[in-house]
Amino acid sequence: MVIEIGGYNFYVVVIFVEKKKEGLEQGQSLSEEVVIKGNLNVIMELCLRRGFLIPTAEIYGGLAGAFDWGPLGCSLKNKVVEFWRKLFVRGEDNVFEIDGATVLPEAVLKASGHADHFTDPVISCKKCDESYRADHLVEEKLGMKGEGLSPSELNDLIVEGGLRCDKCEGELEEVRVFNLMFKTNIGSIEGNVAYLRPETAQSIFIDFKRIARSMRAKLPFGVAQIGHSYRNEISPRQAIIRLREFSQMEVEMFVHEDELNDFPGFERVANVPIRILTREQQQEEGGKDEGEVEPVEATAEEAVSRGIVPNKTLAYFLAKEVLFFEGLGIPPKAFKFRHMLPSETPHYSSGNFDLEVLFSFGWTEVVGNAHRTDYDLSNHSKFSGEKLKIQHGKDMVTPHVVEPSFGVERIVYAILEHSYRKDGERKWTWLKLAKRIAPVQVAVYPLLKREQMPEKAYKIYRYLKDEDFDAIYDDSGQIGRRYARADEIGIPYCATVDHETFEDDTVTIRDRDTTRQVRVPVKELQEVLKKLLNDEIKFEESGNPISTK
Amino acid sequence: MVIEIGGYNFYVVVIFVEKKKEGLEQGQSLSEEVVIKGNLNVIMELCLRRGFLIPTAEIYGGLAGAFDWGPLGCSLKNKVVEFWRKLFVRGEDNVFEIDGATVLPEAVLKASGHADHFTDPVISCKKCDESYRADHLVEEKLGMKGEGLSPSELNDLIVEGGLRCDKCEGELEEVRVFNLMFKTNIGSIEGNVAYLRPETAQSIFIDFKRIARSMRAKLPFGVAQIGHSYRNEISPRQAIIRLREFSQMEVEMFVHEDELNDFPGFERVANVPIRILTREQQQEEGGKDEGEVEPVEATAEEAVSRGIVPNKTLAYFLAKEVLFFEGLGIPPKAFKFRHMLPSETPHYSSGNFDLEVLFSFGWTEVVGNAHRTDYDLSNHSKFSGEKLKIQHGKDMVTPHVVEPSFGVERIVYAILEHSYRKDGERKWTWLKLAKRIAPVQVAVYPLLKREQMPEKAYKIYRYLKDEDFDAIYDDSGQIGRRYARADEIGIPYCATVDHETFEDDTVTIRDRDTTRQVRVPVKELQEVLKKLLNDEIKFEESGNPISTK
Repeated sequence: MVIEIGGYNFYVVVIFVEKKKEGLEQGQSLSEEVVIKGNLNVIMELCLRRGFLIPTAEIYGGLAGAFDWGPLGCSLKNKVVEFWRKLFVRGEDNVFEIDGATVLPEAVLKASGHADHFTDPVISCKKCDESYRADHLVEEKLGMKGEGLSPSELNDLIVEGGLRCDKCEGELEEVRVFNLMFKTNIGSIEGNVAYLRPETAQSIFIDFKRIARSMRAKLPFGVAQIGHSYRNEISPRQAIIRLREFSQMEVEMFVHEDELNDFPGFERVANVPIRILTREQQQEEGGKDEGEVEPVEATAEEAVSRGIVPNKTLAYFLAKEVLFFEGLGIPPKAFKFRHMLPSETPHYSSGNFDLEVLFSFGWTEVVGNAHRTDYDLSNHSKFSGEKLKIQHGKDMVTPHVVEPSFGVERIVYAILEHSYRKDGERKWTWLKLAKRIAPVQVAVYPLLKREQMPEKAYKIYRYLKDEDFDAIYDDSGQIGRRYARADEIGIPYCATVDHETFEDDTVTIRDRDTTRQVRVPVKELQEVLKKLLNDEIKFEESGNPISTK
Repeated sequence: MVIEIGGYNFYVVVIFVEKKKEGLEQGQSLSEEVVIKGNLNVIMELCLRRGFLIPTAEIYGGLAGAFDWGPLGCSLKNKVVEFWRKLFVRGEDNVFEIDGATVLPEAVLKASGHADHFTDPVISCKKCDESYRADHLVEEKLGMKGEGLSPSELNDLIVEGGLRCDKCEGELEEVRVFNLMFKTNIGSIEGNVAYLRPETAQSIFIDFKRIARSMRAKLPFGVAQIGHSYRNEISPRQAIIRLREFSQMEVEMFVHEDELNDFPGFERVANVPIRILTREQQQEEGGKDEGEVEPVEATAEEAVSRGIVPNKTLAYFLAKEVLFFEGLGIPPKAFKFRHMLPSETPHYSSGNFDLEVLFSFGWTEVVGNAHRTDYDLSNHSKFSGEKLKIQHGKDMVTPHVVEPSFGVERIVYAILEHSYRKDGERKWTWLKLAKRIAPVQVAVYPLLKREQMPEKAYKIYRYLKDEDFDAIYDDSGQIGRRYARADEIGIPYCATVDHETFEDDTVTIRDRDTTRQVRVPVKELQEVLKKLLNDEIKFEESGNPISTK
């Protein structure tokens, strides 16, 4: 279906999901039920109206498959990235972050296979030029599986099915192969072809030698990268779920093939519970909708010993992803790992696991985990003539690679759907954002716009800002409206200056999640807010509770 | 001249600068003399060997005008960006950060003028295809001013001068106009032209309306953006000084034209001293080398009242840039503002000021400050048909724009040249990096690789990492070699576990800048390091001083 928001068309498959979850095993308790109240419609309306997202070049009619992060989205996204960096880079012993160029010369993408094989089958209308992914067309119009079919097979099905253009009923061209990379030219002489990178990973492989040498790195070590990637999708869809320009966070963990099961640090995550939909489950229960099959739950340790995950290096990342997603406030039962079927796995991979999140439109990949073996380094070595080996003990070896690859936009969108709340007590919607990623941490208000309240409140706001809080000052309209505006974008705490402030130098702090209020001395405000944001104290203990109607 | 480093050619104009400075006025004291000891040769050698920079696609022969940030460079760059964000975005009352798409449709760049006018005159060799910037060729080979001349004027000079290809002596083609934007195509149908953005600013203008509305913004307010921009330079030069893909940090400050002198917050920076090379100085002393003319020094307040800077909004940013660069450790006399001459200023601008830094190869622009008037919003309004106005008091107005635009790579390179040290006491070079941006804050060492020292040191290292320090652990080689390696990349502090540690639970901390050492209890280490890194205590007071030979 097509939803128009702000003059913009969103092509949407909306499946409202209202699935109650059972309690977790292993002593874990869940404060939230997995009831997704957000959907593409309400989330995008919120995002556009409150400045999370802005359609790229909107005033010129927009650019399909492109979005700009607005102020709140930019801050939310930056905080997600910083939390990831803490968990997957800065907190790790041997992970090095690089930031590579996004325009890469043809030779790199020839070696990686993208120049020849990173393609989709496309079919265009002879009359109106509209283009479709041929495999999607076959699936949608004929109800047949189109993925993996050759262009001529697809063509036959389309001709046999008598399919015509969905837009103008015109006749369709032949199916052709379309490369998904954006092509450009370097310098003023034609023919010096370059591409916008389709993934961040390749920079890491081509920089491998210099990174290893300059950092005196020993196996195992990882190289991380956060940045834009580009895919010239034929039909970008679902707002920020399938974009032409998007952000990735990737780690390439280089490990000796024989040591995939000796991953250092594994013990730190051995007991983290992981939920996995196994290949057996998918094949046996193939008839069922994916969401109906309850995944296997095991600790990282058990998952390896039971053979569900092939090695400890992969299991290490799956476990860390569980911690990451829980830290982002995604309910544990709203995401799971799916062991990709052999038909979905590249020939060189010895096992891929997608982290899928339950969205309003179904389970969707948000992180890909791949054991890429030595495929990439070997290929680049062959094409460039450089030895991409590293000293390990007495030998020079080409290490294996385990790669978790995160899609930033999908993560942010998952956070928004799962934090969206609309409940009986409040007349307005609110976002229950994890406090570590809330774009604004505290709003400071004067109750009234007189009696020096604005001056006092502004002074407190400035003080908090100088102390590194993400604070806003708002004196516009009734206090209730201001609370509603704050709730709508997930501000965890609001501090209000009122008459009493001038008597005993205290302010009211309001808690987003419960709407309860306490009274806190101004001179303790900074300390109290810091503890509240770090979950070091309970709200009720943060000050003198006051009763509100 | 051409310098080859690591199989890579750097085209360099190296001017060794050894200019002693006089003491600052206004009671400011300078601990550093402006003696640049770094130059392109030694800095690039260091950057490649120690992992600050990696030539993009190096194993495939590289890509001119492109570099990847290696691990240390990535961390240094990220810290510079974060410090900028704190000063120019998060610390400000009304500055909103966005993050826009880097691929923009043609309509946007038509309206901005880039599609038609963002060009350089280029001339190619008929024989070998080598290309040159025609204006640079005229300047270098004929000693005449080529900037601003038309292609036919340049062509005449080249023909009259009998110039031939510098590389193969071949005959040259006619001068032609070359657009500096990278062009690509969106979707599978040809003709849907898009460009990689040549500057981050345009996203801000085209998103203006939605930002203003969604953030309920009132004038004056700013919109910031940090991200990649792309320019298909004909001859990229000087390592990371002129790149084809680079990073910008920009603010567009929207202000009512009549209120350019009522900028809120100006009082906070009114007394900051600014050094400006005025237009008069440049015109009067035109014969002199730029570096020989001493700029005018005035506070931000005085600069406006004396008419040196046209308004307080511009002066506000100049003053903040002074604070930013001093915070990065660039000596105050190593940078100045130059009021651009009328011939260097776009017709719509009412005054541009470049922040120039003294590099080993001369004074070079690192930040551009422009008063762009209402040119951009008016143009986009005209081309898109959207009203890009905002309510101000009772009127709808098109605000003016003041824009500081920072080049990230040049800033990082400036930091490296100005922190590079080679002095008599140490046998090795070291980087006197400002502590707030040092990629590694503390190195933890076991003195020896026995007697449980490695285990103890590793435990301390892990503890510091978990407490959010950027720490490394290193047990390889003699302690002296480890200090040398740490100094070379500017690690402010090294903590060493030795025999004494097992007696009294203390470690040695060594200070990078003085090589002095103190003894600190392990249980106070985190607190002491935090205070040292924040300059809250002097090194001598941080523990028990120990005498070293």
